Amino acid sequence: MAFSITILGSSAATPTSRRNPSSILVNMDYTYFLMDCGEGTQIQMRKSKIKLQRIRHIFISHLHGDHFFGLVGLISTFHLLGRTEELHVYAPRGLQDIIQLQLMASQTQLIYPLIFHDTNPDQPEILYETDEHLVKSFPLDHRIETTGFLFAEKQKPRKLKKSFLFYDVEITVEDILKIKAGADFVSDTGRIFKNADITEDPPQPLSFAYCSDTRYFEPVIQYINKVNLLYHEATFMEDMKSVAQEKYHSTALEAATIAKKANAGMLILGHFSARYKELDQLLAEAQSIFKNTQLATDGLTIDLGTNEKTR
Amino acid sequence: MAFSITILGSSAATPTSRRNPSSILVNMDYTYFLMDCGEGTQIQMRKSKIKLQRIRHIFISHLHGDHFFGLVGLISTFHLLGRTEELHVYAPRGLQDIIQLQLMASQTQLIYPLIFHDTNPDQPEILYETDEHLVKSFPLDHRIETTGFLFAEKQKPRKLKKSFLFYDVEITVEDILKIKAGADFVSDTGRIFKNADITEDPPQPLSFAYCSDTRYFEPVIQYINKVNLLYHEATFMEDMKSVAQEKYHSTALEAATIAKKANAGMLILGHFSARYKELDQLLAEAQSIFKNTQLATDGLTIDLGTNEKTR
Repeated sequence: MAFSITILGSSAATPTSRRNPSSILVNMDYTYFLMDCGEGTQIQMRKSKIKLQRIRHIFISHLHGDHFFGLVGLISTFHLLGRTEELHVYAPRGLQDIIQLQLMASQTQLIYPLIFHDTNPDQPEILYETDEHLVKSFPLDHRIETTGFLFAEKQKPRKLKKSFLFYDVEITVEDILKIKAGADFVSDTGRIFKNADITEDPPQPLSFAYCSDTRYFEPVIQYINKVNLLYHEATFMEDMKSVAQEKYHSTALEAATIAKKANAGMLILGHFSARYKELDQLLAEAQSIFKNTQLATDGLTIDLGTNEKTR
Repeated sequence: MAFSITILGSSAATPTSRRNPSSILVNMDYTYFLMDCGEGTQIQMRKSKIKLQRIRHIFISHLHGDHFFGLVGLISTFHLLGRTEELHVYAPRGLQDIIQLQLMASQTQLIYPLIFHDTNPDQPEILYETDEHLVKSFPLDHRIETTGFLFAEKQKPRKLKKSFLFYDVEITVEDILKIKAGADFVSDTGRIFKNADITEDPPQPLSFAYCSDTRYFEPVIQYINKVNLLYHEATFMEDMKSVAQEKYHSTALEAATIAKKANAGMLILGHFSARYKELDQLLAEAQSIFKNTQLATDGLTIDLGTNEKTR
């Protein structure tokens, strides 16, 4: 089991020498999902030794360049590396034309299926779903149509207690699935095992939400309630609150307020304006409202299960 | 006076962890020219502490992604940094539509003039010319329409000998210009100073040529004859000569042959296939034909006047 995120870019608008434009890799049980894809994302992945071809689904929040200018290069690289698996791209309408025009200019006929899905800027939608996981989009409040994304494990079945497995009873796979779903068990001899006695609660499902780019926008709280980890943009600090408002961005304090109201477990701030050379004050501003806050840095990996951080 | 180049990317097709896709910055007397602009070029310039806004002219050899995917990000960054000066882009027809479509998607109205010039894939053309410098394009032989570029200083006027300046003669600015152009000088007293006695030869004009991407293509020799520095692609080695031919690329030996036949002063090899982890053999192959050969590395600067190399 794995559920981790790796920050590939944490700068706003223009890259700096230390921060690339927006991108995050999400690893849910070794299926890789990419979220936003600013210029240089594929190079960041190479530096982090991430296996590019594991990416099956790419989610683009909106069509500002710092969130998608790296996509066409990644799509081309998949082609040059001989990819055969489908690649699904979920993005606002318009991105497909941008990619196709560039592939046409180089007379490139992709050797793998590239499938675009338009996201809905007006209401939440499930974009991806399996028995174990789902990915949802939800509206944000930005200058152009923008969505956030929620990555969530589904509720897991109940776990059989080890002690039960030592009883001398005949049991089928079907019985086990029923018990995991909450049923009592009756043995061949008629002995009744109460579900509560032979099972224990499964681990809580984990979840991660991404809110970039957006103004302070309380309607998101319902979609990200109790996420283990929230990535929220904090382009500015409170002393530039009016600029943030005008440019449809958030301050660190606003990001922290959203994290607090959503009962998030942990907050990662990102999408920093290049004007801030040091971010200590920006972090302190958020921590005054929401203690468990951290600054995004390019290359940082956070494991949602263990809260372990690696670079 | 300055004439230097800085390698910003030297990989073919896909970036590696150490090499970005193609781009070279040319500095002629502190006017900056960018040649090709693969993904991540603006980030490479930031790392090399290059003043982005000094770039006035960008030349794109062809519309394969590894030569232009970084352009739209650079254009956006100029906008976000408040540029007001014109930016001229010389490229094959089609690039303007690609850039405009992406700016439209983000509802960006550039605040500076962006002017596109179509290059001619069939014959050489002067793209840029001042009293001191010129930039020419010339055809290469690649899978899609591609041009190389020549950056050249013009012949400088003759230099007045210091000894002449100590003579006690009345002389006007107009007289000096005539002498520099080759005229003798006659003083008020009727004394004749022969031009050969009072002037010396000016420094030889410097030149730099860029040939990427191309098959081995002898017609280029006429356009790059006696360049001080030639950058030629060497995607493959001789053992893959047939692959090079098929993919419209060159081997290291072919690049060296062009340098030798063009009487180049120095050869820089670049655009290496990602298959080569070590390039010693590729370099040796070229040096067997043309001794003064060097491998491009990202961040390398070469001063054409002094042949000094810095990183």
